[in-house]
Amino acid sequence: MFYPDSLNKLITALGKLPGVGPKTAQRLAFYLLNAPAEEAESLAAAILEARRKIHYCSVCGNLTDRDPCHLCTDPERDQTIICVVEEARDIVALEKTRQYRGLYHVLQGAISPVDGIGPEQLKIKGLLRRLHDGKIKEVVLATNADVEGEATALYLAKLLKPLAVKVTRLAYGLPVGSDLEYADEVTLARAFSGRREME
Amino acid sequence: MFYPDSLNKLITALGKLPGVGPKTAQRLAFYLLNAPAEEAESLAAAILEARRKIHYCSVCGNLTDRDPCHLCTDPERDQTIICVVEEARDIVALEKTRQYRGLYHVLQGAISPVDGIGPEQLKIKGLLRRLHDGKIKEVVLATNADVEGEATALYLAKLLKPLAVKVTRLAYGLPVGSDLEYADEVTLARAFSGRREME
Repeated sequence: MFYPDSLNKLITALGKLPGVGPKTAQRLAFYLLNAPAEEAESLAAAILEARRKIHYCSVCGNLTDRDPCHLCTDPERDQTIICVVEEARDIVALEKTRQYRGLYHVLQGAISPVDGIGPEQLKIKGLLRRLHDGKIKEVVLATNADVEGEATALYLAKLLKPLAVKVTRLAYGLPVGSDLEYADEVTLARAFSGRREME
Repeated sequence: MFYPDSLNKLITALGKLPGVGPKTAQRLAFYLLNAPAEEAESLAAAILEARRKIHYCSVCGNLTDRDPCHLCTDPERDQTIICVVEEARDIVALEKTRQYRGLYHVLQGAISPVDGIGPEQLKIKGLLRRLHDGKIKEVVLATNADVEGEATALYLAKLLKPLAVKVTRLAYGLPVGSDLEYADEVTLARAFSGRREME
C-alpha cells in the first residue's frame, strides 16, 4: 500500500528467492531501481537467457548448454569411473579439487522420506543404464554426509551390488584444518574407525 | 569455467546485488534455474517493469508510478508541513507509524564529505522552491540519527532559518523497549537532556 504497484511486484518477486526476507527484498528492489539501467536490464536478461539455454545433460544430469555436456564428451576424462552426486552444483565443488578426472552422474536429490522423496524420484534408472555395457569399473558415491545422503548411498550400494562394478564412498573424517576438540563425536568416531596407516 | 556461459552470466549478474557474495549468487542462480518458469520469468519482468514505470516524483522526490505522487496529490494530507527524509524508503518507515499526515521531501542522500557528497548533490533546491509561497508552516528534519544525517539536518536548519518556517528535528532518546543499561552514553545523554515533564 505504501509503494507503487510495480515496485510492490518487484519486492514480492525478489522475496521469493531463498534466504531473501521482506527487508532484503525491499533493499534489493531499491538497489535495482537506483542501479544503472544496463545493470538491472542485464540481470533480467541473464535470468531469461539462463532459463532458455540451460538444461540437464541427458547422459549425466549436469546443468549444461549443450547435450551431452562438456564433461560427458571430454575424451581426456576417465570413461571407466562415475562419481554419483546429489546436485549439479556438487560437480563444481568436486571439480575444484582437481583430484577427479572421471565422469559424473547427478541424482537430482537424495532419498528423504520426510520430504516424500523416494528412490523413484531420483535419476537412478539413467545411472543403471550407463552401467549396462560393463565399461564402468567404479562408482564413487559422493552424496552428502548427512542422513539423506547416507541413506541414498546405502540404497545405491545395495542396488549396485549384483553388478560387476566396484562401489566406493567418500571418506568420513576430520575436516582439514579443524580442531579435534571441536569435532562432534560421530565425526570423531568415523575418523577413528577410518584411520589409515602412515607411510 | 565449470559452468555453462549463460549460467556464469546469471551468477555474475546476481553477484552485483548488495549483500550477495559469490556463494549466494550461485545458490540464487540454481534456485532460479530450478524454480517454475513463471516464477523466474515474472522476476525478470518485474525488474524491467519497475525500471520502466517507477521514477522520482518531480515535487517531493518519492518513488512513484505517476507524477506528482499519491502523497503529494492526496487532499486529505496536511499541506502545511513537510517532512524531510534522506531516502524514499524512509517515507515507508514513517508512513507505517500512522503518526504523520503531512507532505514529504526526499533529499536523495545526506551530506557526507567522505563519499564526496555535498549539499549541492542533494535535492535541496526543490525543497526551497516548495517553501517559497509561504504555505508551509513547519519543516520536520527526519534525516538519519547518524553523523551524515545530523550534519544534513544542521545544514538545512541553518539554511531555512531566514525563512518564516518552523524547523523541527526528530527526537533523540531511548528506543522504546530498550534497557537503560545497554544504551550507549551519547543516546543516554540525549535522552537526559531531552527529558520531558510528565503530565
